[in-house]
Amino acid sequence: MNRVRNCGVARKKRGLFVKELVFGHQNPDTDAIVAAKAYAYLQNQLGADVEAVALGTPNEETKFALDYFNEPAPRVIESAKDEVEAVILVDHNEAQQSVADIKDVTVTHVIDHHRVANFETAAPLYMHLEPVGCSSTIVYKEFVAHNVEIPVNLAGLMLSAIISDTLLFKSPTTTDDDIEIGKKLAEIAGVDYQAYGLEMLKAGTNLAAKTEAELIEADAKSFEMAGKTVRVDQVNTVDLDEVFAREVAFRQAIEKANQENGYDLFLLMITNILDSNSRLLVVGEPKDVVEKAFGQKLVDDKMDLAGVVSRKKQVVPPLQDAFEA
Amino acid sequence: MNRVRNCGVARKKRGLFVKELVFGHQNPDTDAIVAAKAYAYLQNQLGADVEAVALGTPNEETKFALDYFNEPAPRVIESAKDEVEAVILVDHNEAQQSVADIKDVTVTHVIDHHRVANFETAAPLYMHLEPVGCSSTIVYKEFVAHNVEIPVNLAGLMLSAIISDTLLFKSPTTTDDDIEIGKKLAEIAGVDYQAYGLEMLKAGTNLAAKTEAELIEADAKSFEMAGKTVRVDQVNTVDLDEVFAREVAFRQAIEKANQENGYDLFLLMITNILDSNSRLLVVGEPKDVVEKAFGQKLVDDKMDLAGVVSRKKQVVPPLQDAFEA
Repeated sequence: MNRVRNCGVARKKRGLFVKELVFGHQNPDTDAIVAAKAYAYLQNQLGADVEAVALGTPNEETKFALDYFNEPAPRVIESAKDEVEAVILVDHNEAQQSVADIKDVTVTHVIDHHRVANFETAAPLYMHLEPVGCSSTIVYKEFVAHNVEIPVNLAGLMLSAIISDTLLFKSPTTTDDDIEIGKKLAEIAGVDYQAYGLEMLKAGTNLAAKTEAELIEADAKSFEMAGKTVRVDQVNTVDLDEVFAREVAFRQAIEKANQENGYDLFLLMITNILDSNSRLLVVGEPKDVVEKAFGQKLVDDKMDLAGVVSRKKQVVPPLQDAFEA
Repeated sequence: MNRVRNCGVARKKRGLFVKELVFGHQNPDTDAIVAAKAYAYLQNQLGADVEAVALGTPNEETKFALDYFNEPAPRVIESAKDEVEAVILVDHNEAQQSVADIKDVTVTHVIDHHRVANFETAAPLYMHLEPVGCSSTIVYKEFVAHNVEIPVNLAGLMLSAIISDTLLFKSPTTTDDDIEIGKKLAEIAGVDYQAYGLEMLKAGTNLAAKTEAELIEADAKSFEMAGKTVRVDQVNTVDLDEVFAREVAFRQAIEKANQENGYDLFLLMITNILDSNSRLLVVGEPKDVVEKAFGQKLVDDKMDLAGVVSRKKQVVPPLQDAFEA
């Protein structure tokens, strides 16, 4: 009952598995990089021919984790169809967050923990989605279901992804599964998850070294809402004031990005990982939908969101609802 | 790590699970009815409050199976939002195959073996899709993953669904998983799957008792292809000639259905379950796309498809490709 037999018909040619690429979303965060590496390892253990790649270079946090566990960053690709006919998506499913030529290849598997939208296939496929805090939590379950052991370094990376996505289990997206599996992975990896996790998160908040243009792209995602293109970028920090000292420069960078890319509305979400609050800077229109979504007025295009740390769970759904109301 | 804990946050109110409905597609076949019953049983064993319902009454084959294993047919619903806020989909995901007010409720789980299309959520959800022959095969895996025993009668029904969807393991949609799990279910149910299966399939081919209008609706599904609404109905028989003796009446019924429902193109797919071949009767436009899809000319709007028994695997994908080419 393993998946090699499941999907063998669709994925084999003349008895051989055809190579597939697996990757996470654009502007990869730690989970996008790690879930791809981990799922590729699992698939290869099961006899498939899968290479983990990425749609961008690792951010500072991910670099810290890869260095710590002595693992290489995946190769960056711009196109899938030049290399393969079939791909596996992790940590995303929406086409606009995927590789540019996603429509020209066949998606055979999706491992994800996001809402489903702008995703369509011509044929049946394997999908394992759960409303948990991190794709790597689901990848862990796939290892268990297929009875494959997780190597020490990969366990450390998967723990890093869970810590990253759940902000050390503080995000409301965190489920019991994330905590339980995170602790198991910490045991396999042989690290103290609290101490390691805080060190890793802080490594990701080294904002001084980056330009505003880089920061508004680093963890940005686009969403189609009622015909508008809404861009939401999340930046983690340990000092909100330090970030908003650069507000004028952020506004200019965002206005430029909106113009160049046709974004209607841009939300820059600055999250304080120490106290789990966020502040929004909103550029573009319609701003009143943002006010409706969060039930408060913008002041100088800014809004404090107490206890909000999750774009996926606390920002995108109310925005979507407000747009569609 | 069971799903009660997984999804508890989203689905509980004040510590209590909120009732959900689970159902298969419109014009339910045996799998649509059975997978809903089986998944409801599993969810309830895990502590959730889920009722299996259906979007139509059981067909002759399903009635035979329900009678044989002494199980009641699920209640038929027209609307979900009047009863619940959240639903579970089995054996389908496309909105036009679901309950009429699907857009007004939240989908929390999908268990399916079809392509994904016209499906979008506002929030993350649980999805378990596999490219296997039958949804009940996936439901079986969910029972195993959650360590819940399958009752004898439910095992018989799940076997019936697998036999129905795979035409007794003869359809090219059949995977090793379907066969392996079908045999396990036959053991639990205490039936000879060959003898039982043929008896059940024949019970579903009692066409003489039905009008043409009933037959073209009984197992029909709509698909959006390049802006056209394509309707594909599959009818199983043990005697093709007997069916095509009624061709004129079938044409009239289909023309009426096309007009009344705005279908652009209607494919009536008559499958001989004894020799695993099908004959198409095509009414509507564009007919040339059908010829392109299957690489042969229509003769009097008809076409023989040798070895074709699977709408999902052998009819819809080539049609979709031809429409989009």
